[in-house]
Amino acid sequence: MNQFAERFEGITGSAIREIFKLLADPEIISFAGGNPSPECFPKEALADIAKQALLENGDWILQYGPTKGYAPLIDEIIGMMAAEGVTVNVPNVIILSGSSQGLEMMAKTFINKGDVIMVESPTFLGAIQTFKTYEAELVPVKTDDGGILLEDLEKQIKTHKPKFLYVIPNFQNPSGVTLAGDRRQKLVQICAEHGVLVLEDDPYGALRYSGQALPSLKSYDTNDTVIRLMSFSKIISPGIRVGAAVGGAEAIAKFELCKQGMDVHTPILSQVLVYEFLKSGQLPAHIEKIKANYKAKKDLMLKLINETFPKGVTVAPCEGGLFLWLTLPAGIDALDVFKTAVERKVAFVPGTHFFAEGGHENTMRLNFSMVSEDKIRKGMAALAGVIKEAL
Amino acid sequence: MNQFAERFEGITGSAIREIFKLLADPEIISFAGGNPSPECFPKEALADIAKQALLENGDWILQYGPTKGYAPLIDEIIGMMAAEGVTVNVPNVIILSGSSQGLEMMAKTFINKGDVIMVESPTFLGAIQTFKTYEAELVPVKTDDGGILLEDLEKQIKTHKPKFLYVIPNFQNPSGVTLAGDRRQKLVQICAEHGVLVLEDDPYGALRYSGQALPSLKSYDTNDTVIRLMSFSKIISPGIRVGAAVGGAEAIAKFELCKQGMDVHTPILSQVLVYEFLKSGQLPAHIEKIKANYKAKKDLMLKLINETFPKGVTVAPCEGGLFLWLTLPAGIDALDVFKTAVERKVAFVPGTHFFAEGGHENTMRLNFSMVSEDKIRKGMAALAGVIKEAL
Repeated sequence: MNQFAERFEGITGSAIREIFKLLADPEIISFAGGNPSPECFPKEALADIAKQALLENGDWILQYGPTKGYAPLIDEIIGMMAAEGVTVNVPNVIILSGSSQGLEMMAKTFINKGDVIMVESPTFLGAIQTFKTYEAELVPVKTDDGGILLEDLEKQIKTHKPKFLYVIPNFQNPSGVTLAGDRRQKLVQICAEHGVLVLEDDPYGALRYSGQALPSLKSYDTNDTVIRLMSFSKIISPGIRVGAAVGGAEAIAKFELCKQGMDVHTPILSQVLVYEFLKSGQLPAHIEKIKANYKAKKDLMLKLINETFPKGVTVAPCEGGLFLWLTLPAGIDALDVFKTAVERKVAFVPGTHFFAEGGHENTMRLNFSMVSEDKIRKGMAALAGVIKEAL
Repeated sequence: MNQFAERFEGITGSAIREIFKLLADPEIISFAGGNPSPECFPKEALADIAKQALLENGDWILQYGPTKGYAPLIDEIIGMMAAEGVTVNVPNVIILSGSSQGLEMMAKTFINKGDVIMVESPTFLGAIQTFKTYEAELVPVKTDDGGILLEDLEKQIKTHKPKFLYVIPNFQNPSGVTLAGDRRQKLVQICAEHGVLVLEDDPYGALRYSGQALPSLKSYDTNDTVIRLMSFSKIISPGIRVGAAVGGAEAIAKFELCKQGMDVHTPILSQVLVYEFLKSGQLPAHIEKIKANYKAKKDLMLKLINETFPKGVTVAPCEGGLFLWLTLPAGIDALDVFKTAVERKVAFVPGTHFFAEGGHENTMRLNFSMVSEDKIRKGMAALAGVIKEAL
């Protein structure tokens, strides 16, 4: 009866889903997720905004709204872009139900079956899955501790003639690394020269714990090469599902057409919560609070790795975000480490899942935002033991 | 630069969008929309629920949630289905960001380029557009005042071997008609026999102003032929974007996979608003209030058509929902009527836009839910004049 579309062939998603099923066990200390910490949600502020907004403006907050988004929030996004040195106008912006909706829209807008999308190696697992449902060919681009290697980028472009490059420039998921400052303008130039679009996904950029903030890829864009995705999930709340895309007017108009089917519009209450929180002026102090919380956890995790993990385990440089990326000595399979770790009530994500091309079995991703410092101590001690035994 | 995907070829959507631009003029009396009336939003109740929920449960309401939806709301949907005589379980239900998200998921789950989807003639404009973005062939099935004609359904199935039939059985958009009780079981049987799925979209079913409620198509389903879409947009609020799909477990699992890309999950606050409003027991009385409001407007509009419109204008039978469907005498083009009407500050939607196959230029859709009785009197007087002149 159910003759499913061909787009699902080769999509399993089961490995990572199995991991997340394990997390239902309350005894598990999980470094596997990518969630922000609930300590960092502005609950009281949003509760007050929600009640007041519904009482005063329920007539339009509860009504159908424009697909493109709540106009005052669009203006706020334009202002945030201006602060980054990027001049855009209303036709360049659309509000999304989380920035990951932008991945779906980008694929739907540009991908015909068999088209090529370039992704970082490794990259965000959700992106791999979403792009595959549009029957795209994924071509990985090599990276090092400074992100995408431009020589390989140019080589892959010439070989595969991709439609776009998907890149997370700041504190990448899963690797935690940041695209080097001296690669950013060149990356945009290379893509522009070859007519390859760039999808710049930046959910973590505001969460920098050390080093200097770098210009966005969009800030180097001169001809609508870059579509930038912004997210409020890591700085306000993921549960309300609000992000935005900023790009060329033609592409954004297609995104709007896509969004009519996907959800008609992002819930207006969600958009009003973000807008009013921004307007209240509380966001900068709130971000500082989040950063202090996560930086302490990250520093602790890193210290424990350096002090207690076997020599030969390396950590990718990480100046912000939610993740540390570990490479184990060659020959150790993180899937084996994972199995033993879960028996000892500690979880993480084996790194192989983040590679479109597979392989890299000796890598692993650790999340530090969701776990208390106590649990980080306990979990990392157990993990150190498991890795030592595996050696 | 922008090499858009082929899926957008032939999608314009411009005619209807032009209409909605006109509605920005506050002097226009619009019978063009399909919105519920803001008088019918439970603002105070939702404001209280939102504040209390965020204060008490902000930790998980503001966090990422399950793609499938908020478990207690899924249980409520299972209960609502049981009240319709349909036994389903958790694997059969997914919460959507509005029921129209189900159209996108249905297409993504089942449609390969060139596959056939059968739609009512006429049908919901948004469905036509969404299905076209999956490069489906749309085949219209003939209808009369009792909805789909089963002989034509069977004929079209045999000729075109469609993947699924899209049908709005109650107070259809745009025609207002209801699928006759004695056609329902047979429709499901015919589709089941031929391995054709049925997408039953029922956003208006609770808004019946006269006649007897009829069993859902899903209630006649014995082998996962029917996927039923439910919506809270017309009975609580469209702006919060909450609906649900109920169907076979395999299909719902694919919907869940699709939803991961589309928006990860429906905002939890939206789901909690619906759940708590349902649990408060206020919905039945609230629906009665909405029905009283809309029935008075519908009766008034119908009375004015009968009393003041030229002979030869017919109205399709309508026992609920938001729309009246008019057929003008042959030879009168509702697009011409529309142009003159807008000059006189009255708008509606010319019916031709709702036909996948085009034509039917002498039809028009009137919405009665959004306009006050005073404005209905004024607008219908102007419209009567325009139609008389066109004769």
